[in-house]
Amino acid sequence: MTPGRPVPPPLAKPITLDTSESRTGSTLAAAYGATSPDSGLVPLTVARRAPKEDDVEIAIEFCGLCHSDVHATRGEWRVPPYPLVPGHEIVGRVTRVGGAVQDFAPGDRVGVGCLVDSCRECESCLDGLEQYCERGNIGTYGAVDPRNGDSVTQGGYSTSVVVDRRFVLRVPDALDAAAAAPLLCAGITTYSPLRYFDVEEGDSVGVVGLGGLGHMAVKIAKAMGADVTVFTTSESKFDAARALGADHVVLSKDADAMEAANRSIDVIIDTVAAPHDLNPYFRTLRLDGALFQLGLPAEDMPPVSPGLLIRRRLAYAGSLIGGIEETQEMLDFCAEHGVVSDIEVVAAEQLNEAYDRMVAGDVKYRFVLDTATLQEPSERADA
Amino acid sequence: MTPGRPVPPPLAKPITLDTSESRTGSTLAAAYGATSPDSGLVPLTVARRAPKEDDVEIAIEFCGLCHSDVHATRGEWRVPPYPLVPGHEIVGRVTRVGGAVQDFAPGDRVGVGCLVDSCRECESCLDGLEQYCERGNIGTYGAVDPRNGDSVTQGGYSTSVVVDRRFVLRVPDALDAAAAAPLLCAGITTYSPLRYFDVEEGDSVGVVGLGGLGHMAVKIAKAMGADVTVFTTSESKFDAARALGADHVVLSKDADAMEAANRSIDVIIDTVAAPHDLNPYFRTLRLDGALFQLGLPAEDMPPVSPGLLIRRRLAYAGSLIGGIEETQEMLDFCAEHGVVSDIEVVAAEQLNEAYDRMVAGDVKYRFVLDTATLQEPSERADA
Repeated sequence: MTPGRPVPPPLAKPITLDTSESRTGSTLAAAYGATSPDSGLVPLTVARRAPKEDDVEIAIEFCGLCHSDVHATRGEWRVPPYPLVPGHEIVGRVTRVGGAVQDFAPGDRVGVGCLVDSCRECESCLDGLEQYCERGNIGTYGAVDPRNGDSVTQGGYSTSVVVDRRFVLRVPDALDAAAAAPLLCAGITTYSPLRYFDVEEGDSVGVVGLGGLGHMAVKIAKAMGADVTVFTTSESKFDAARALGADHVVLSKDADAMEAANRSIDVIIDTVAAPHDLNPYFRTLRLDGALFQLGLPAEDMPPVSPGLLIRRRLAYAGSLIGGIEETQEMLDFCAEHGVVSDIEVVAAEQLNEAYDRMVAGDVKYRFVLDTATLQEPSERADA
Repeated sequence: MTPGRPVPPPLAKPITLDTSESRTGSTLAAAYGATSPDSGLVPLTVARRAPKEDDVEIAIEFCGLCHSDVHATRGEWRVPPYPLVPGHEIVGRVTRVGGAVQDFAPGDRVGVGCLVDSCRECESCLDGLEQYCERGNIGTYGAVDPRNGDSVTQGGYSTSVVVDRRFVLRVPDALDAAAAAPLLCAGITTYSPLRYFDVEEGDSVGVVGLGGLGHMAVKIAKAMGADVTVFTTSESKFDAARALGADHVVLSKDADAMEAANRSIDVIIDTVAAPHDLNPYFRTLRLDGALFQLGLPAEDMPPVSPGLLIRRRLAYAGSLIGGIEETQEMLDFCAEHGVVSDIEVVAAEQLNEAYDRMVAGDVKYRFVLDTATLQEPSERADA
C-alpha cells in the first residue's frame, strides 16, 4: 500500500451483488460502494451480465467522483437500494460486444455517463434528449433497469460494466483517459446549456462557483470563444480562476464589483448547489440573458425578483446533463479544443478521504478513481 | 349627470399643469388625474406642447384603465410627481402634425401605448426594443422627458396628447376604437412574450389569471392557433374563460386537476400580480417550456424549485410590454383576426368607482374612459 493512503475499512470478505437477471455467463467485477448511509465506501464484488445482442462490455480504466455520488451513497436525496456502487464518469476500453453491435469493437476507448438506458419511445428520447425521458431515464447506478430483469444498475467504481451500445460514447484517443472521465458528467452538464443558449465567439459567459462543474464551464466556454467572468465568494480563488482561462473574476460579495459587472453577461452557468440569492447575478445579465442553475440545493432557494426578469426579459432556467448525441458532440469538441478536467487521481483506498475532501471543497477540481487499484494487488496488471 | 354616476369630488377650479418646456403655442386639454396619493382622480387641465417638427397631435377618443394606473396614482410603487394624469392605452385621431412628419396626417386613427420616447441610441432601442431602453424608457405619464425640457409626461385620461411620431401607432379602422385601446398595453404585454416564444398553430398556451391581461392572452393565443388552458382559482370563472375561447379550464387549487394537466403546456402567461406559488404551474409545462411572469407583486414571490427547472429544462422568464414595431405588428394582427378587448366604457365621473372595482377584480375585463366626458357638457361635440 502506498504510504499515506488510509487503510480501507476491515471487511471479512467482499459482498457480492447480483445485478443481472440471470447469472449465466455473468462476470464478477471488483468494486467499491456503500452498504448503508453511514457505511462509507467498502470493497464489493458486482456481477456484470454477459453481453446481450446490443451490449458492450467495458473494462473500466477510470471513473470520476461526482458530488452527487456522495449524496447518493449517503442517502441524502433518497434512500437508495443498498449495496450501491456509485460512479457515472466512466472511461475504459471495450472488451466484448454483442452480436448486433457494429459501431464498437474490442480495444475501442469508450465512455459511459449518467445514463445507461431510457424508454427510447417518448418525444424526448426520439429527439435525442434521453436525459429528459418522460418515463424517467435509467441512471448508471441505483436505478431499476427494466430491460435487464429489473436489476439495480451499479456504477463505475468498478473494474467493468456492460451497457447497451446506444448509451456508450466514443472517447477520442486525443484525450487523456483519466482527465476525460469527468467530461461524462461535469463536462456535458455545463456544455449542454451553453449549446442550448447557442453561445458563440464573443458572447459573454458568467460562471458561479468554481468546483467540478464550474471549472469545466470556464474551459468549455473559453473553447467556444466566449469572454468568461467567474463569480466567486473568495478572493483566494482569483488566481485559480484566471489560470483556468477566466477573463474576469468578480468577488460576488463586493457590491461595487457586482455593480461594475451590471449588464455585462449573456448567460450565467450557476453550479452552486447550496441555497443562494440569485438576484445580484440577474443584475449582471444583459437583455434576453439567462441564468442556468445546475446544482440542486436540499433547501429552498431565496425568492427570485420577477422585476429583474421583466425589465430585461431574462430567464431563470435549469438544465440536466445532456443527451447521448450531444455528449458525443461534447467529447469530440473537447478533443478538438484540448479540453479536459483538472484532476487528482485517487486509489480505491482513498475514496472515503476523497469524499470528505469533496464535501470540504478541497479538490482542484475533480477526483478520478484509478480502477486498477480496486483489484487485489496480485490481480493487477502491474503486479 | 347620468343617474347612478358618483358625484366627482368638489374642486374649486381645475388645476393647470404645464407639461411643455415653453407655453408658446401650447394647448390646454381637459384631464383627470391625482394630486396626491389619496386625492382620488379629480378634474385637471394639462397644457400640451405645440407640435414640434416630429410631433403628432392627437385628439384622444378613448383611454383604457390599466391596473398600473391605480398603483401609480396612489403612489404604491414610488411617489410619483403630482399632479399626475395616468393612462397609457390611448386611441384617437390625428389633429395636427409637425413639418417632418410624413407617415401621419390629420384624421388618421392612431394610438399611443406605454412609451412616448427612449434614448434611441442604445442597443435595445436600435433593435426596436425601446421598452428595454438601457437608459430607461420615457413612460407615457409620470416620466421626466429630456427632449421636452425635462417636463413630466401626462397620460391619456385627457382630451389630447402630443407625441413624437416614432412612438405613435397606426390603429386599423377595422378595430373598434374603444375596444382597441387596451391593446396598447394589455394586448402588447401578452402578445410580445407569445411571439418571443414563437407560439404557433397547435402549441399549447396556459394563462394564469383572467383579468385585463389574462383575457387578452386567451384571445391572442387563440388567434395564433394555440390550444389554450386557463388556470383559475375560482370555478365561477369557468364559463367566462370558455366564452373567451379557452379550450380547457383548470381549477388551480384542485391538485388532481393540476396533476391531470401535467406536461400539457408549452408556455404559460402568468398575469397575476400578487405573490403566488409558481411550482404547480411549472409541473404543467412540457420539456423546454417557459412561464412568463408579467405582473409585479409588491412582496416576494414564494421560492421557485430549481429541481423542476432542471428536470425539464424550463425557463422562468419575464417580459415587459413590447417595442413600437412589435406593437404595430400586434395591432395589425388583431385587426386581421378580429381581436379586441372586452370592455366597459366609463365616463370621467366614474373613474374613482372604476378604480375601486378594478382593485376588487370587478370588471370584465377592461374599463375604457370615453374622453368626451372629460369636457364640460357645453364643450362636448354631442352637446
